[in-house]
Formats: sequence, structure tokens, C-alpha cells
Amino acid sequence: MNHHASRPVPVAPARGPRRGIAIDEMRLSEGFWHTLQSVNTGATLAHCLEWMERLGWIANFDRTAAGDTAGPRPGWQFSDSEIYKLVEALAWEHGRTGDEWADKTLEALVDRIAAAQDPDGYLNTCYGHAGQADRYSDLSSGHELYCTGHLLQAAVARHRTVGEDRLVAVARRAADHVCAAFGPDGNQGICGHPEIEVGLAELGRALGEPRYLDQARRFVERRGHGTLEPVVLLDSSYFQDDQPVLAAEAWRGHAVRALYLAAGAADVAVDTGDGDLLDALARQWDRTVERRTYLTGGMGSRHQDEGFGEDWELPPDRAYCETCAGIASNMVSWRLYLATGDVRYADLMERTFYNVIAASPSEDGRAFFYANPLHQRSAANEVRPDAVNARAEGGVRAPWFDVSCCPTNLARTLASWQSYAAAVEDRTVSLLQYAAGELEVRLDSGDTVRLRVATEYPRTGTVRVDVLDAPGGVDLRLRVPHWAAGAVLDAGADERAVDPGWAATGPLAAGASVRLDLPVAPRWTRPDERIDAVRGCAAVERGPLVLCAESHDLPPGLPIEEVRADRSRPPVDTGDGATVRVTAVRPAPAAPGTPPYRPGPESAPDSGEAAELRLVPYHRWARRGGATMRVFLPAA
Amino acid sequence: MNHHASRPVPVAPARGPRRGIAIDEMRLSEGFWHTLQSVNTGATLAHCLEWMERLGWIANFDRTAAGDTAGPRPGWQFSDSEIYKLVEALAWEHGRTGDEWADKTLEALVDRIAAAQDPDGYLNTCYGHAGQADRYSDLSSGHELYCTGHLLQAAVARHRTVGEDRLVAVARRAADHVCAAFGPDGNQGICGHPEIEVGLAELGRALGEPRYLDQARRFVERRGHGTLEPVVLLDSSYFQDDQPVLAAEAWRGHAVRALYLAAGAADVAVDTGDGDLLDALARQWDRTVERRTYLTGGMGSRHQDEGFGEDWELPPDRAYCETCAGIASNMVSWRLYLATGDVRYADLMERTFYNVIAASPSEDGRAFFYANPLHQRSAANEVRPDAVNARAEGGVRAPWFDVSCCPTNLARTLASWQSYAAAVEDRTVSLLQYAAGELEVRLDSGDTVRLRVATEYPRTGTVRVDVLDAPGGVDLRLRVPHWAAGAVLDAGADERAVDPGWAATGPLAAGASVRLDLPVAPRWTRPDERIDAVRGCAAVERGPLVLCAESHDLPPGLPIEEVRADRSRPPVDTGDGATVRVTAVRPAPAAPGTPPYRPGPESAPDSGEAAELRLVPYHRWARRGGATMRVFLPAA
Repeated sequence: MNHHASRPVPVAPARGPRRGIAIDEMRLSEGFWHTLQSVNTGATLAHCLEWMERLGWIANFDRTAAGDTAGPRPGWQFSDSEIYKLVEALAWEHGRTGDEWADKTLEALVDRIAAAQDPDGYLNTCYGHAGQADRYSDLSSGHELYCTGHLLQAAVARHRTVGEDRLVAVARRAADHVCAAFGPDGNQGICGHPEIEVGLAELGRALGEPRYLDQARRFVERRGHGTLEPVVLLDSSYFQDDQPVLAAEAWRGHAVRALYLAAGAADVAVDTGDGDLLDALARQWDRTVERRTYLTGGMGSRHQDEGFGEDWELPPDRAYCETCAGIASNMVSWRLYLATGDVRYADLMERTFYNVIAASPSEDGRAFFYANPLHQRSAANEVRPDAVNARAEGGVRAPWFDVSCCPTNLARTLASWQSYAAAVEDRTVSLLQYAAGELEVRLDSGDTVRLRVATEYPRTGTVRVDVLDAPGGVDLRLRVPHWAAGAVLDAGADERAVDPGWAATGPLAAGASVRLDLPVAPRWTRPDERIDAVRGCAAVERGPLVLCAESHDLPPGLPIEEVRADRSRPPVDTGDGATVRVTAVRPAPAAPGTPPYRPGPESAPDSGEAAELRLVPYHRWARRGGATMRVFLPAA
Repeated sequence: MNHHASRPVPVAPARGPRRGIAIDEMRLSEGFWHTLQSVNTGATLAHCLEWMERLGWIANFDRTAAGDTAGPRPGWQFSDSEIYKLVEALAWEHGRTGDEWADKTLEALVDRIAAAQDPDGYLNTCYGHAGQADRYSDLSSGHELYCTGHLLQAAVARHRTVGEDRLVAVARRAADHVCAAFGPDGNQGICGHPEIEVGLAELGRALGEPRYLDQARRFVERRGHGTLEPVVLLDSSYFQDDQPVLAAEAWRGHAVRALYLAAGAADVAVDTGDGDLLDALARQWDRTVERRTYLTGGMGSRHQDEGFGEDWELPPDRAYCETCAGIASNMVSWRLYLATGDVRYADLMERTFYNVIAASPSEDGRAFFYANPLHQRSAANEVRPDAVNARAEGGVRAPWFDVSCCPTNLARTLASWQSYAAAVEDRTVSLLQYAAGELEVRLDSGDTVRLRVATEYPRTGTVRVDVLDAPGGVDLRLRVPHWAAGAVLDAGADERAVDPGWAATGPLAAGASVRLDLPVAPRWTRPDERIDAVRGCAAVERGPLVLCAESHDLPPGLPIEEVRADRSRPPVDTGDGATVRVTAVRPAPAAPGTPPYRPGPESAPDSGEAAELRLVPYHRWARRGGATMRVFLPAA
């Protein structure tokens, strides 16, 4: 039944005609994602390892193995999960490139992890041992099943890239323990942070073990009945325990929790053939994208609970848009794409890849954004390069955080990036994300299709696909993003305008060549009338990239809060950004100590000379040092 | 030197020519504040007492006295302070009216408080006894000195209304203990939550004890050097430990902390004659009012840390505007008014009194708003009437909170309200807040001036003052609020236009009568161009009242997010609110699952018939049940 489970893919639905390409089916040769992936390979993986050794998070496994757990334990209760996410990243890295360092580093970590596992399969360095709280004594905040879920995902990556090994055996025992402890006759609780659901479902797929899927389904069904003990200041919606998954209208509460849960529920829905559950998730995706999603694709409007706001609550300045929430959003969208084939899911993934995920790492891969706001009011100070930084503030990428979920999450995502770039269904290959490289796709028929993609996307909008080899022919589908009005497809004799959606070709043979031209010229974008926080503003996008104004580029003496943009003129392309014409608003004069509200209704006139303001891609902001920044510019 | 200290006033500067009237110098007869004060008398005081008995917060003193502290202790570590604030409220209540229940209730509480005091003066039910953490072992979060500060403020109220008594003796021992423990040779720390500063300074004034002022000054000077241990996710600005008081440009971090500190620092500045410190506070007030204050006078833009945001960060929907921050803001403004005589401080106090403080209690005085946002996106559910409610969410007034600082803070403020209504300087009586009643003011000369104020303010703008008795004559000054362009003063033959500021009369004798007409007709107010979150919007104010739209008054089928107001027409007065003409915006149609951003720059047209929308005073919102609400209306 599970015809894709043995391929090295991050997500392998047990049902359905569609699969993502495997990690070894596409090699990136150059360009945007190749650069990010190379930096991940060359810097981020070792960086994460070094920090977690330095802070003692990895040594927690050694102390647990040695029975030395009575003293203080460094790290949060969920720090084990960071090691598992790094292991997953190393597994994909080795699976993609055969890199020996990645393989050896992974094995060394697995040695230490395995040694800490209890005889009954329980594995956690924070609970259940001498001097620690009992196992599962704090389901709301303990994160034990969350950590286990990440262990299982790491093992899935290993199993699909190298097959059965010691990590897989550790994960199998851990999963068996969870099934025994939380099965029909066991503890009827759930974990405050979802993740075990997706881990169990995927491990079940990888190992062909239906019990794991059953247990994932149980966790999904148990959720939403208010069984989790509340945490101070937060109600049960924080952990999505307020409403059953089937009943919710939109995602709510802590964004990463909500999205990891949705990903696990999607796996359960697909593999059990539960159409109602899948429909509910698709509706929640629609509603959340329509009303609770930033222009960048970012999700999570609130700092207080790292959570979704209400409909239309999308403040740019306090946007949380956690990097991990972007990754989690793509986990959900990818599952819904595989389940439905609907191009909109891939559209949102592109938005999130370029404007949330790519925004997080520094050029050198050793510093990261945790939150990704769309407006920075005051230029950040430099971070302390050797210190653990507060997670959400700053406006400068930091090397590590007190809660440091984002660096390792980025590492596993970038290590497996091309898995999300294309999908295969029968003899059709669909290109979803554009990057230069070669694909070598093994069709179910046994034929191998080879394609070369040449593009400088997103700098330019031209994507050329050469069919190098296609015994029996291949149908190509190229995604035309929803913003790409005026795209043109040239498939030999057949140059034609294509609407957003799919640009499809008939069967192509070796030697065929296809060119898609996407209009990436910068364009004004305005927000829905119901989003209060950016009323009267517009942003500029260029292809898939959201642009922003940084104080580095402002005329001297013009603070960012006084910039007003002339929306009557189209933005001018600069090749990788744009310029727009701006003036300065002159705030109404007021006596000192007067509240900032005046008799109405006239507005103050703009003043001063018009100037040209350069806008740069949002994902590159703050690379030139701390800056004030805004994506949405008030209109003149 | 301290010529005002023995009068029953909440604040008695040791220097300066100006004093507030004493609590027994004005009797309210009817109207807005008389009603609120009467409900406080008849309901809120007993309500607070009942809840704190029910929850065991008062019994914590009994358990401490009995040495029975090993078991679990109900309430937060700062719950003692709530009992002290209630005691302060009871002291003012008894001092104002001679009410016996208030006196007996206070004495009964003091019995229990006094019994819990350690022999060396230390008094706290959460630290320092069997089974508890050591005294002052957690200065960042322990709130011990914060609690002590409220004890001292309660004792000041008692001392100024009845003189030396047991509560005063308890407070004296507690203050002596603090001076010994934290003096020059003692612990050099500070408390994470300011309040001890204001308590020590005021008790020093009341008792003529300079050591207390010295210690208050020490605490102010020690602050801002980063000595407090950081708390997770918060940096040292949360407790104003990032910058010395003298160096700060604006208030920042936790709003109540920032404002209590400023109040204490103002007392220190005035009594020590420290002009630099007073100037710094005045500058901070200016900057904060100009850039970090809501139309309601509310302060605190962020939920995460209950704190100030950055300049211009004033989102209406996530406005925190804690009731206690409004009270604390008035504590600061009152001190700066007394120190400078600048009318702007009284202007802000009026704004805050009517639109933050008066908004909190329900009509029956048994439920309260903790947060006071200016925009409610979804109609709140009812609160659980017998349960402790989460503090900041909801949009419905709740009977009690997990952290329940606001009800007792309201109680002490309302019990002493008239103390802020007028001030005396030599032979001049300045009326600052308008309410019907009689004043009987004892001038320093020994003469007693009697005035009758007749007004229905803020329903109408007419204030009539009759001089009933004025041996030697009295000069009157009536505050003309900054919004009151077109005010008219009629002092007998002398009817004339008066500008915002002061309307002053020459010496008046018994039989004289003065009438001030303030224009309270509803008016449009627009926000400063730099406030992003309400760009393109306007609000309606009527006299000192901010108005709001509630869903109760919306035409059927018009959700509040689609209301657009016609600002070209002045609002129409309804006698206590206004109506404005509104239309509905028609959001641009979009395919399902599309992010809420469209090609620009055109905006969607409004549609539908114009309708008249009733606006009601903000302070009354949600009285008719859960509602969506907004103060700022987008312009058509």
C-alpha cells in the first residue's frame, strides 16, 4: 500500500497518486536555494552542534545514561528536541550528498542518545530519573511527547536515506513505549505541544507499522476537549485543546503548535482515508490564509503566546512570524498539496520559503532571526556574539537563543529543500519551486526522466527546462504563481500566455525544451480593507519577494515613520529590488506634552522634495547592520 | 517644613506652595464621580474583602502569625499588597465619611496583619518563614518591598485621617526594617516592582521621619544599573533597571512599574529639592504623553510584558491600558501638577479618569476591566461569575482575577477621588476636575472658603460656582481643558471667551457666582500621522469622553470591520454620545485561500446605503453584554 515510503522524502503519504521528489532526485547547481543549502552544509550544521555542546544540552543525554541527573540540568525541558532536529538535518544532509562528516556526527550523537534510553523505551533527559519530576507529570508544559515526535522524525529521515539502523531502533522502542503508555488502556492524555502525531504517523509509514498511525489518530482525536491543565495567562486555545480538530474554523493559539498539529492530522486524514478531517484542515488553511497570514507568508501575530491573532489582526510591527511557524506552515501546505494537488498550497510555500524561511539565517549561516516582523521601529543593537539571546526582540540575527528551536529547524528544512521543489504523478512531473539544477526522477513505471532547469529566479523570471532524457515521454507542469499575471510559456512552436495556476505541456521527449517567463517586475500590493494595522499603506513585491525599506537607504534626516510613498507611479526595477518615489509627511505641530491626537478631520500635507527610495528584498534586511525597516509604506 | 503633611490628602509634598484639597474639604453631591464613589462605598469595598477571604489571601496573615506556613500558600507572591490597598481604601472611606463599617473592617484587618509581623519589623506572608524561600531571595520577582510599599501607603492614609494608630505602628516598624536591611550598610538591591519608594517617601512626610525619604532616594538612585536578575523573555527595561531615572527619555517596560517608580522619584525630587530629577521626570512625561499614550489616556501597548511600546506603537486592538496603569499615571501627573502647577497634568488626569479609570468598574461595582483596549474584534463570552478570571482578555468585566491588582487599586482611588479635584495656593482655589458638590477649604491664613459647584458635567459643559463664604476673598481658577476651544467664562459682568488653560477670576466675596461654559459637543479627532495602527481613522470625543461604536448599535449584517465613517459631517450630539454617518466598505472579492493582499493601488469602493451609527461613551462599553467595539473608525 505505502508505495512511496521507502523513498528518501520527508513526507510519504500512504495513499494518493502524488509524491514529492526524493532528496536524491534533484541536485541544485547554483542560485538562491543552492546558496542557502550550501551555507547550511558548510556552517549551520556545525554551528548548532557547537552551541548545544557548549550549553550542555547534548551532555544531558550522557548524564541521563550515567544516572547522574540529580543536579541542575542545563536547557529548557524541551532541549532534547533540538538535538533530534539536528540529527534529522544530518540525516538529510548525508542522504543528499553522502557527506561523511554528517554521517559520523550523526552516529556519534546517536551513541549518546541511545545510551540515555530507558529499558522500556522511554527517552527523555528532563523527566523520570533521579531528582527529576515523574514521567508525564506535566503534560501541558513538559514537552516529553513533543521531544519524542522529533526523535521519530529524525529516525524517519535516517530510515529513508540509509534504512534500518541504530537510530531507527531507538525510535521504534520509543514509539512502542508511547503506544503502550498512551494507548487505549493507557494514559488518555495528550502533549501540550503537538509533534508526536506527525512523528508517529511518519514512522508508521516508514516502518509499515499501523499501530503508530493508530496512536497518532488517537492523539488527534483526543485533542480539543480541554484536558490539558491551563498555564498561567493562557487558555486552552494556546495548545489547541479548546476545540476538536474537526470542529475548528481556523488555526489559533500558539502558531507552531497549531501547525504541527495540523500536519499530523493531515497525515492521519490521508492514511486513514478520513475525508471529513482532510476537508476540515483544508477549510482551516483557507480561512487562516485569507485572514491570519502576513504578506510574507508569516503566521503568528502575537508575542504574548507566540500565537495567531484574531481575523485581520496582522500588526506589522509586533508580527511574531516565528521562523519555526513558517517551517510548520510549509509542513502543512506540503501535505495538503500532496493530498489534493491544489497549486495554491505551493504558492503559499513559495511565499513562505522566500520571505520567512530565507529571512532567518545570516549570510554566514551562524546567526538567525527567530521572529520576523514586517516593521522595525528602532534600529537594533548588535547582539552579543557569544551569548544566548532573547528570542523575539532585536532586529538583528543572533547566534543562539534561550529557546533555540529555529536554527535546528532551519537546518533540517534547508538540508532537504529540493524535496519540496517538484512532485510526480504517473508520467507527469510538476515543478513547484524554481531553482537551477538537474532532476533525475524515477517514475513508477521504472523509467527515469532527466531534466535540467536553468534559471536565475527570483532575480529574473525566466525558467528554462531541458528534457535530457525521457523514455516513454514526460508531461511537464510548471507552476505559475498567483501573482504572475502575464506569464508566457514557450514550449517550442507553442508560445502562449498562461494564467496563474499550471502551465502544462503535452508529452515531451529528450531534447525538448520549455521556457516559462514569469513577470517579476516590482508591483504595488495593497492590503485587504479589513486589516487595520496597515490601512492606507502599500507594499512592493518583486516576483516572489516581498521588498522593504531600510533606514540605510533613507535620505538623511527622514525618519522611517515620516516616509510617504507615491503609489501613483509604478515601482522602478533595480534588478533585485525597486525604487519608489517618496516624500516626507510633516506631522502637525503640537505643544509639548500633548497627546498625539488632534482636532480633525484634515490631514497634514506632505512636504519637502520627492526622493527616490531604494527597497531591498525583505529576506536580506538587517544584513547591513541594525536598521529601522518597514514593508508597508503609508501612501502620500 | 512639611506644612501639608497632617491634612488628609493622598500626596503631601514637603515643599512648594501648592496643595491638593483634603479628602474632607469637598463633598460630592451628585453626578458622574458621586455615582462611582457611591458604588465603591456600597459594593466594591465589600466585594474585594469577600473575594480575598474566599481565596485565602487574608488568611495568609493568620497562617504566618500561627507559624503555619509550611503548606501550600494561596495567591501570588504579591497578594499581601491587595489587602493593603483595600486597607488604604477603607482608611480613605472612613476618613471621608466617618463610616463605621469601614473603620471596623480596617481594624479587623489590621489585627490580622499586625499579628503576622516579625519581631524585627519584616512583614510578608510569602517569604522568610518555615517552608518558604528566604527573605529577599528573589528581588526580581518576589515583590516583598512592593508589598511593604503598599502597607506604608495604607498607613499614610490612616495617619492623615485618624492619626497615630496600630496600623501606623506596624508600618513604622516595617519601614525601619527596610531602612536597616537596605540602608547604606545593608543589602544594596532594589525591588523588581517599584512602590516602596512612594510608600517610604509619603510615610516619611506623614511621620516627619527623614530616614524614610533618604531610603526612598537610595532606591531611586540604585535603579537603572542592571542589578536585578533578568526574568525569562524580559530584559532589564521591564523593571526600569536598564537606565537610571535621571537618564531615561521616556517611560518604558512594564507600565505600572514605570509609573510607580516615577511617582516615588517625583516625591524624592520635590522633597530633596532635586531640580534635575524633577526636570527629567517632566521630560519623560512629555515624551510619553506625546508618543506612547492612547486617546483614552491609557498607557501600555503590549500584552507580553504589560508594558509600554516604542514611540508611536499604539495598536487599539492589543492596547493593554491596564486599569492600574491609568491609576499610576494619575499618581505621577498629580505629583507633577503639585510640583509645577502646569495645567497639562490635570488635563491628562481628566482624560484618564473618564476613559480608563471610570471604564473599569461595572455599574454594580462588582466586576472590573483589567485591560482597556480601544478595539474589540470579537464579542466576548460572559465571564464565570464565581471564578477567578484571566486578567487581560475577554471584553467583559470580571469579578476577580488571578492577578487582581485592579479592583483594590480602583477602590482606593475612588474612595479618595475628590482629593484630585481642586488645589489650593495661598488665597487661590483651582478647580481641576468638575463635579457637583460643596467645598470647604481651609486656607493657610486660617480663613475658610466655602464654594458650591453645580454642574452636570460631562453631560453638559456648564459649571457654575457659587461663593458661599470667603472671608478676605478668594481667587478662583477654573481649568479649561485643552480640547475646549470656544469656552466662555461669565464672572458677573465679565462674560468673555477663555482659551484652554486657566479661566481666572479676581478676588471674589461671598455671594459671587461664576459660570464656565465648556463646549462638549461631539467632535472628530484624528491621530498623529506617525501612529501606524489607526492610520486613516478618526475618533469622536464629546467633552472629556472618548466615544466608541459597539456592535449592539450596528445595522444588521454590518460587521464592525466593514464600517466606514463619513468624516465630512460633524458628529451629531445625542446628549450623552453622538451619531455619525457610516457606510460599508465592500472588500475586494478574492478566491478562497488567497492571502489578503491584492494588486494595488486602487481601493475598493464603499457600498450600500448610508446609515446613522450611534456612538456611546467608551467607559460604558460592554455594559449591554459582550460586543465588538472600536474607538477609531476608518474613514469612508
